[in-house]
Amino acid sequence: MTPTPPSAPPRPVPLVLIGFGRVGQAFSRLLFEKAETCRRRYHLDPFLHAVLNSRGGFATGRPLRPNDLFAGDAPFVEGNHAWQPGLSLDAVLASAPSPGVVVECAPSDLRTGAPGLAYLRAALDAGWHAAAASKGALVVDFRGLRARAAARGLSLKLGGATAAALPTIDVGTTALAGAEVLAIEGILNGTTNFILSGMAAGRPYAEVLDEARRRGIAEPNPSQDVEGWDTAAKILLLANAVVGLDASLADVSVRGITAVEARDVAGARERGFAVRLVGRCARPAPGAPWALSVAPEALPADHPLASVSGTAKGVTFHTDTMGAITVTGGGSSPRATGAALLKDIVNIYSARR
Amino acid sequence: MTPTPPSAPPRPVPLVLIGFGRVGQAFSRLLFEKAETCRRRYHLDPFLHAVLNSRGGFATGRPLRPNDLFAGDAPFVEGNHAWQPGLSLDAVLASAPSPGVVVECAPSDLRTGAPGLAYLRAALDAGWHAAAASKGALVVDFRGLRARAAARGLSLKLGGATAAALPTIDVGTTALAGAEVLAIEGILNGTTNFILSGMAAGRPYAEVLDEARRRGIAEPNPSQDVEGWDTAAKILLLANAVVGLDASLADVSVRGITAVEARDVAGARERGFAVRLVGRCARPAPGAPWALSVAPEALPADHPLASVSGTAKGVTFHTDTMGAITVTGGGSSPRATGAALLKDIVNIYSARR
Repeated sequence: MTPTPPSAPPRPVPLVLIGFGRVGQAFSRLLFEKAETCRRRYHLDPFLHAVLNSRGGFATGRPLRPNDLFAGDAPFVEGNHAWQPGLSLDAVLASAPSPGVVVECAPSDLRTGAPGLAYLRAALDAGWHAAAASKGALVVDFRGLRARAAARGLSLKLGGATAAALPTIDVGTTALAGAEVLAIEGILNGTTNFILSGMAAGRPYAEVLDEARRRGIAEPNPSQDVEGWDTAAKILLLANAVVGLDASLADVSVRGITAVEARDVAGARERGFAVRLVGRCARPAPGAPWALSVAPEALPADHPLASVSGTAKGVTFHTDTMGAITVTGGGSSPRATGAALLKDIVNIYSARR
Repeated sequence: MTPTPPSAPPRPVPLVLIGFGRVGQAFSRLLFEKAETCRRRYHLDPFLHAVLNSRGGFATGRPLRPNDLFAGDAPFVEGNHAWQPGLSLDAVLASAPSPGVVVECAPSDLRTGAPGLAYLRAALDAGWHAAAASKGALVVDFRGLRARAAARGLSLKLGGATAAALPTIDVGTTALAGAEVLAIEGILNGTTNFILSGMAAGRPYAEVLDEARRRGIAEPNPSQDVEGWDTAAKILLLANAVVGLDASLADVSVRGITAVEARDVAGARERGFAVRLVGRCARPAPGAPWALSVAPEALPADHPLASVSGTAKGVTFHTDTMGAITVTGGGSSPRATGAALLKDIVNIYSARR
């Protein structure tokens, strides 16, 4: 059942994690949990060389262990021998035994890309691969970052930034290699899909949003989700990474769900339609310029995304030679995003077979 | 929109195509069509070094062109300067400018793996990568072929053999790297799904099967489909390639759809269930041995595969860290299978980024 491991030791892969919020913490826990799987199945030994946040970093000069980061369930700084206030990215990259992967999970700004953009540029310039779960830097300068990576033969991975464990980028690139993507449509935000699913029963927007907040599905300030900007950022990344566009957020026509009326959603359901917030990348006519949009749409029951309900997500790629391929599901917890980052790291190093 | 091509010429990739039936012909046409895309987007120049069938082969000592193979729409032998009766695989592998990929599309036998098994072994032993659309050899000796490939650092690709353009293997391996697959369930055969979809309206099995035959959906002899063996072969390949089992066809419990009654399918629909022929790879209990099965099942409406109807296919992977991920759709024509082969070839050579 398990292939015999080659006799050489697993390849060490130093990781520098930037951002130690919910996703960063979940990623580091997952990495400790999956160490043996990585060694056995992929012959890789990814380890945390350092973890940075805006105030400093955790680093000990050897691979970080759980008790260098966590006391019980929570990260701790006070009295932690591994905590170094003001520790910089340059310093930890320089002290690593070899370049590896910078894993970017810092809170990010969709307009400026800060602070991730500077981190990712520095990482690539220092010869490190990059895997991002934050969208800001990628939204602002995907093309520049991709070129910087390509010039050095490095990978820039964004699976964790484009709908967590839903494998949007992997399907759009690896699984569709050689095919022409004619259009992409996606339900890319779990919070808005949860709200629209609840409104299909006739419940008002504000009431379902409150429930989503209480259940921890919606952020305390959900404006980025309900106004459509989270979906816009994700369809933009798919357009640039899969179709090869060079679009920016200003090119996306964005309408969220704040003006959607419960009676319209419920009425659509009675007529057999599902109202969904759809991110779309398509050409209005063959040869016409690509158009990017986010808007609530009433999908017919036989649309492959119509059955994606609750907090689920999904994306459909329309192609020239492979038909339409839809991928749905995938966890959207911090742990699932951490799993998407680990996947990207494994895929940087493991040979295709 | 299009990256500037590097200055070096595209990498030549010699291909030897084995089998020149519907899939082999569709693949070679697609390759001619996609030559420019391969050069521009992947910096690869895949070309047909030779095409073999059971009676001989097409080869000219330079890359084959459409008119070396086809007169109008049909392949031709009589009066074809490129046709060499009795041409052998050994001879064409030896005459290639360098090793490339053997593309295996010959009709195959699920019990013996012949003739593909001998071809694939010879190809790998000669240092060629392999991409298969035929299932026989892979069903009979996936583990042996995979080991033979791994020992030489070669790829063995089976995307085209596991549900054509539906990216089952890509999702199960690349997109789920690092995750544990806990179970796989799939609707893997378009013919049986078409028949069951038709029976949901109360139409008898024989009547819908006749329609499927008339429309070219079912083969003249559909027994491998309706008795479940095509689905069994595919779930077996997924189990071995994705979960890492070493199972054989005899390990799969197989029940097809020939005994399914229209009134049961229609009755299930009235109760909100969809009857589907499901291939399943799962452990009955945590830690229990894996069990492989094919059987008609009534799926509840909220099952991600319940909405897969007509000739469509789909597969759900249940994982430890990424939730459940479902991929549906994908063409199932010879051209779509050809596109899956081309994808596998591109992915053998193009760097991950």
